[in-house]
Amino acid sequence: MDHEQRAAIEAECARLPLLYAKYADNGDHAALADLFSADATYARPFDTPLCGRESIQAMFRDRKPILVRHIVTNVMVEVIDERHAKGTSYLTMLSNHASTQPPQEAGGLYVGDFEDEYVRTDEGWKFASRGGMVMLHIGGQLPRPRSAQDA
Amino acid sequence: MDHEQRAAIEAECARLPLLYAKYADNGDHAALADLFSADATYARPFDTPLCGRESIQAMFRDRKPILVRHIVTNVMVEVIDERHAKGTSYLTMLSNHASTQPPQEAGGLYVGDFEDEYVRTDEGWKFASRGGMVMLHIGGQLPRPRSAQDA
Amino acid sequence: MDHEQRAAIEAECARLPLLYAKYADNGDHAALADLFSADATYARPFDTPLCGRESIQAMFRDRKPILVRHIVTNVMVEVIDERHAKGTSYLTMLSNHASTQPPQEAGGLYVGDFEDEYVRTDEGWKFASRGGMVMLHIGGQLPRPRSAQDA
Repeated sequence: MDHEQRAAIEAECARLPLLYAKYADNGDHAALADLFSADATYARPFDTPLCGRESIQAMFRDRKPILVRHIVTNVMVEVIDERHAKGTSYLTMLSNHASTQPPQEAGGLYVGDFEDEYVRTDEGWKFASRGGMVMLHIGGQLPRPRSAQDA
Repeated sequence: MDHEQRAAIEAECARLPLLYAKYADNGDHAALADLFSADATYARPFDTPLCGRESIQAMFRDRKPILVRHIVTNVMVEVIDERHAKGTSYLTMLSNHASTQPPQEAGGLYVGDFEDEYVRTDEGWKFASRGGMVMLHIGGQLPRPRSAQDA
Repeated sequence: MDHEQRAAIEAECARLPLLYAKYADNGDHAALADLFSADATYARPFDTPLCGRESIQAMFRDRKPILVRHIVTNVMVEVIDERHAKGTSYLTMLSNHASTQPPQEAGGLYVGDFEDEYVRTDEGWKFASRGGMVMLHIGGQLPRPRSAQDA
């Protein structure tokens, strides 16, 4: 793989966390799900892992709409081969669950790490897996794990 | 347009929101105005829209200096053709209006969306339009619209 | 220097502040020190300037581990020549000094400016100098200068 090919893969994969934020923030669950490979896994913070694009879409489609912004930074991509790459990024999240009408006061500010695996499919580069973990927050509360919420 | 041309336009346009932040934060209103096309429009949050590079410069030149940082993230550019592009970004803003001597406590943290149109002029790529909107904040207050402030 | 060479240098140098954040946040003081040239200088906020890669590594190696995230944004690189470049970035920092076990409440959020000089060495592009300065913060306290702390 030459330098140019590698740079092109890096640019395409680095775009995925930004598109994820865009679609999560504007509530486009179909476009969001399409960023994942069919059998992708997604381990969200404080949640049970999701397996498969359908489950990922269903989670975003079926939850109550919220006003949220996913601020994505520190995106780094490492190309493994022509069909595989991995990457890390930081996510700073603010949200308000009472109203979707901006502007609103956020319940807190949460900073976390994301670790991604990317795979080249016939429809282009997709998330093969995402794993997120909250590291630090200001204000707000840490959500209880979903298993506890659902109990 | 080939992939290389497109990537070059994307890189040039993606630089504009960062330069905007730089010049807004160091108070260089002439350089800031020069990022806009002569007839650009700029709809700032909580303000009446500005029309034309002169009006944009005047607003930044004539206001009281403040200590402010514009944190720019989630920059995405979509090339339309060789002379037009559009883009989105998130802005996280902190400021202190009492002193310009750092470090200072910020009055709040504001997160908003920007939607830009870019145009290639004889002097390179410029903002044809900017539109900003605050989505979420932590602490601080939401400014009253200028029309109310000026009343 | 042609456009492609310049873009390659920009990409390599723009990666250094992100790698700095990564290694500072995961406590890899050896990899962090290796981002600096042998005789680099590093002026941290609220601290006496460090001179030389060894001193920089020692500072990170010998301090008590903390839970910290360095959010890096607004990265801009200006290529000077084939062996020199300079750059600016914003750093948003959150940390908790009581526990390294995430998630934790951060003591505050600090936003600052970094000014870097980059140099191409036989081992690739490195920081020749870093200078950081806190501009604004939310919550938390401003640390006393080290000279006062050590007194």
